Amino acid sequence: MQTIKIKNPVYLLNGFSMVGPLEGEGPLKDYFDYILKDDTLKEKTFEKSERRLLLDIINGAIEKSGLTKSDIEFFFGGDLLNQIVSSSFTARELSLPFIGMYSACATMAEALALSAIFIDNGLASNVIAGTCTHFSSAERQYRFPLELGNQRPPTAQWTITGGGASVISKLPSNVRISAVTFGKVIDYGIDDVNNMGAAMAPAASDTICTHLTNMKAKSNDYDFIATGDLGKLGSEILIDLMEQRDIILGKNYADCGCMMFNKTQRVFMGGSGAGCSASVLNSYILHKLNAGEFKRVLLVSTGALMSTTTAQQGDTIPGIAHAVELEYVGKDSKSNSNNKQRSKSNKLKENKHSKRKS
Amino acid sequence: MQTIKIKNPVYLLNGFSMVGPLEGEGPLKDYFDYILKDDTLKEKTFEKSERRLLLDIINGAIEKSGLTKSDIEFFFGGDLLNQIVSSSFTARELSLPFIGMYSACATMAEALALSAIFIDNGLASNVIAGTCTHFSSAERQYRFPLELGNQRPPTAQWTITGGGASVISKLPSNVRISAVTFGKVIDYGIDDVNNMGAAMAPAASDTICTHLTNMKAKSNDYDFIATGDLGKLGSEILIDLMEQRDIILGKNYADCGCMMFNKTQRVFMGGSGAGCSASVLNSYILHKLNAGEFKRVLLVSTGALMSTTTAQQGDTIPGIAHAVELEYVGKDSKSNSNNKQRSKSNKLKENKHSKRKS
Repeated sequence: MQTIKIKNPVYLLNGFSMVGPLEGEGPLKDYFDYILKDDTLKEKTFEKSERRLLLDIINGAIEKSGLTKSDIEFFFGGDLLNQIVSSSFTARELSLPFIGMYSACATMAEALALSAIFIDNGLASNVIAGTCTHFSSAERQYRFPLELGNQRPPTAQWTITGGGASVISKLPSNVRISAVTFGKVIDYGIDDVNNMGAAMAPAASDTICTHLTNMKAKSNDYDFIATGDLGKLGSEILIDLMEQRDIILGKNYADCGCMMFNKTQRVFMGGSGAGCSASVLNSYILHKLNAGEFKRVLLVSTGALMSTTTAQQGDTIPGIAHAVELEYVGKDSKSNSNNKQRSKSNKLKENKHSKRKS
Repeated sequence: MQTIKIKNPVYLLNGFSMVGPLEGEGPLKDYFDYILKDDTLKEKTFEKSERRLLLDIINGAIEKSGLTKSDIEFFFGGDLLNQIVSSSFTARELSLPFIGMYSACATMAEALALSAIFIDNGLASNVIAGTCTHFSSAERQYRFPLELGNQRPPTAQWTITGGGASVISKLPSNVRISAVTFGKVIDYGIDDVNNMGAAMAPAASDTICTHLTNMKAKSNDYDFIATGDLGKLGSEILIDLMEQRDIILGKNYADCGCMMFNKTQRVFMGGSGAGCSASVLNSYILHKLNAGEFKRVLLVSTGALMSTTTAQQGDTIPGIAHAVELEYVGKDSKSNSNNKQRSKSNKLKENKHSKRKS
């Protein structure tokens, strides 16, 4: 089935987020673990900055989880650069078995989903899932060199500098991954690379409907439904598409791209990039889940699967969306009492990690 | 653990291979399912030809397995083009949940490994794993437009036009996937993009040693060990590296890149590309396994994880290798008697599929 229920307790043990200076001035600034003052990270090229950013994020997540690198068994990751070089070069530094993936800005959800499956089926005890993007490397690969000073059309989104990583583990935490849905590739014929929200909205709609149907759930069963980065226009299209299927996305719905910036920041439709949903999940959403303010969350990262070559050859833009369902299973939660694997030994380990930021 | 043993019977139900005219003149010509006369596949660009090739290969594998597309639950794939567009656009046509991945020319083994894990753990009954490459699209993306007529250095390899796909299933066949190893990213400091075999050999060595150690096996326990596409020089380096670890790769070792072409074809070090190990597995190797001539095979696809940008910025080339162990479990095989899941109902299904080429 397209939706896979995670049978055993699989936890998001902890997450780490890091963003650039512009993102650090946005509405989520108090939730990020680290805000860069210098987005070059003292590297000579933006591509090298991007991979340094990812390495720092992953090391941050491992440290914050109270683990060491030797506790981590696999690295699941990918990114937007050609041949996912940020992730591959980061994997070289980490020296962990590397499962490289690509689904554009839906990469974080794909990585989380495969991570949860590995833990659920006893293939590993702790793994790391992470991704990031850098505005300046993405601009020059996908659009124009920054030096050209090109104007941006009003439907454009802003690839964020930032990212996030999550340690997925059988060690208990407040947050459990309970189900995942791998999306189909959907294409409604949008061919404007400056309007990717519109291209991705049909895939988001398809994945959310599939997930709700398979989980026998309604949209208001979730405290929070977050799409990856449809931006302002794309999320309005999603709301319309869902209404056509009689599903109302109300106040419990937001888009990570829209959440990233405030109205005075001139980023048009909002943030985008694989790092967008990765950083929002591992900051704001994880904080609210850990605090029990969100009990049930659906993260739906969305990706536009074109390349500059397909755009130049007149192809339309296929979209994809993968979904990950997260639940609060903290000490006050009823669902926690069902958690038979919380043995004494695990509780001892929990105490050991109690220093970590909740 | 880096090596994952597949506990339940997971079968390579059937595979399909398709190659271009040059590859179809090589030593394996009698094993391929289809040899193209026209490598444009009547498409207007080489990129569109590549994705048409992949779609035809996947449809071929499904049909040869005696299944229909509605029996397939997930598509695991990736390719060498930027943003894996061949696979993404193929996934759009297939309308299957898509798990996109990238590990350069190691993609086939990564796809097979994740496919086997999904079937082993009951997440699906039938999935498809496939990839392909096209010489002409790879040349102009990674090196130079063909129109320039550039000379090739003697250590260069030839990205093949071709690929393969395998249906991985719980339905029984003669060939079982019994273990997989996900590789680490290894970099010995090679920075010559025209010598990728040398860049990938250390990763192949690391993955083979890890797999043998974890399986408590020796190299001569395997009837056939095939590396992805190290080419002539790379496979000589691998043999040396293995000797340093007291492991002899003898007559049971060959490289898919070397197997693809004969000496009179001017391809220097041999074939390469994600489609190389994919097409050799789904033709020659699968034929020998199905016939029981190979009882135990280790496929080690190897990938060079650079991009043109990293090469231009002076980075060295990180390599990766993933391994998949395949076993003959045909009717005469002893290991087949251990196969408890071969129920009556499966045998009925087997009869239904008996038309498929063994």
